[in-house]
Amino acid sequence: MALGRDYEKQNCSLARALEVIGERWTILVLRDLFYGIHRFTDLQAHLDIPRAVLTDRLTRLTAEGVVRRSEYQRGRYEYSLTAHGRELWPALFALSQWGDRHNAPEGPRRLFSHAPCATDLAAGGMCPGCGTVPAPEEIDVRPGPGARPDRTDAASVALRSRHRLLTPLLTDA
Amino acid sequence: MALGRDYEKQNCSLARALEVIGERWTILVLRDLFYGIHRFTDLQAHLDIPRAVLTDRLTRLTAEGVVRRSEYQRGRYEYSLTAHGRELWPALFALSQWGDRHNAPEGPRRLFSHAPCATDLAAGGMCPGCGTVPAPEEIDVRPGPGARPDRTDAASVALRSRHRLLTPLLTDA
Repeated sequence: MALGRDYEKQNCSLARALEVIGERWTILVLRDLFYGIHRFTDLQAHLDIPRAVLTDRLTRLTAEGVVRRSEYQRGRYEYSLTAHGRELWPALFALSQWGDRHNAPEGPRRLFSHAPCATDLAAGGMCPGCGTVPAPEEIDVRPGPGARPDRTDAASVALRSRHRLLTPLLTDA
Repeated sequence: MALGRDYEKQNCSLARALEVIGERWTILVLRDLFYGIHRFTDLQAHLDIPRAVLTDRLTRLTAEGVVRRSEYQRGRYEYSLTAHGRELWPALFALSQWGDRHNAPEGPRRLFSHAPCATDLAAGGMCPGCGTVPAPEEIDVRPGPGARPDRTDAASVALRSRHRLLTPLLTDA
């Protein structure tokens, strides 16, 4: 992709990160993988983007070692975040907090809590209950006061209930 | 820009954040403003991008209330982050840590420390010295072991010394 070459003169860790995840839609693909949306069909319906765009982003993320692809049925694939990909959680959380702070008049659209402490995360993804920055495996997502339940795709419906990040989201029911 | 409309069906705080800062180069413009690079000429030289691209990104960020433009001399403008823009710090820090973790064989390119504690920041932008997530006004940036001093523009040279974030970088000397 062109993006990688664009930033090559920038001797900068942020530029390197953007070369991997700065393509349009990529961060939202990663968000969905954190939510546990793991099948191509569900990702496509939840993101509402063309197949070709989703295929391109997943192929790129797989090549970069951020996403793992596995066959769950002959010819059908599911996707999950690698350890490297999971380390993007603090960045995605911080961006989404920022989006809420000035652009959510009715309050956050989703709330994130540290499950063992049952405490909502604060700035920097820190849990005020235990003072640590929990890994996504210990974080629950649930709809907040600003949620608008207008989407009817399977993943949107499943995410109306509290859900542990990275746990495959059940969309077959 | 097209980006804002692209994500409109995504009822998501992350998508809202990306509508403001997801355009190519925008995050690196913000990085430079955190470093205290404040004049158009210095920004352009440090980013090494066409004038039109920089003008477009700054205009958009100003319209979104992320950046403030002020005239420091007749017909000459400087730029700084508003309070809203400064709140992006945790997200930029997290992204840059991620870029370092898997893509900096010689170590981080830049190091960030909480000045009052003289302690390098840890995950989530937290200061291990005092347990808080410091605001950028209290953070120093300095070159790390992975820094490559190959750029000769005024801002790159000035950033070879320790510098307090958001403090205007002196590039006239």
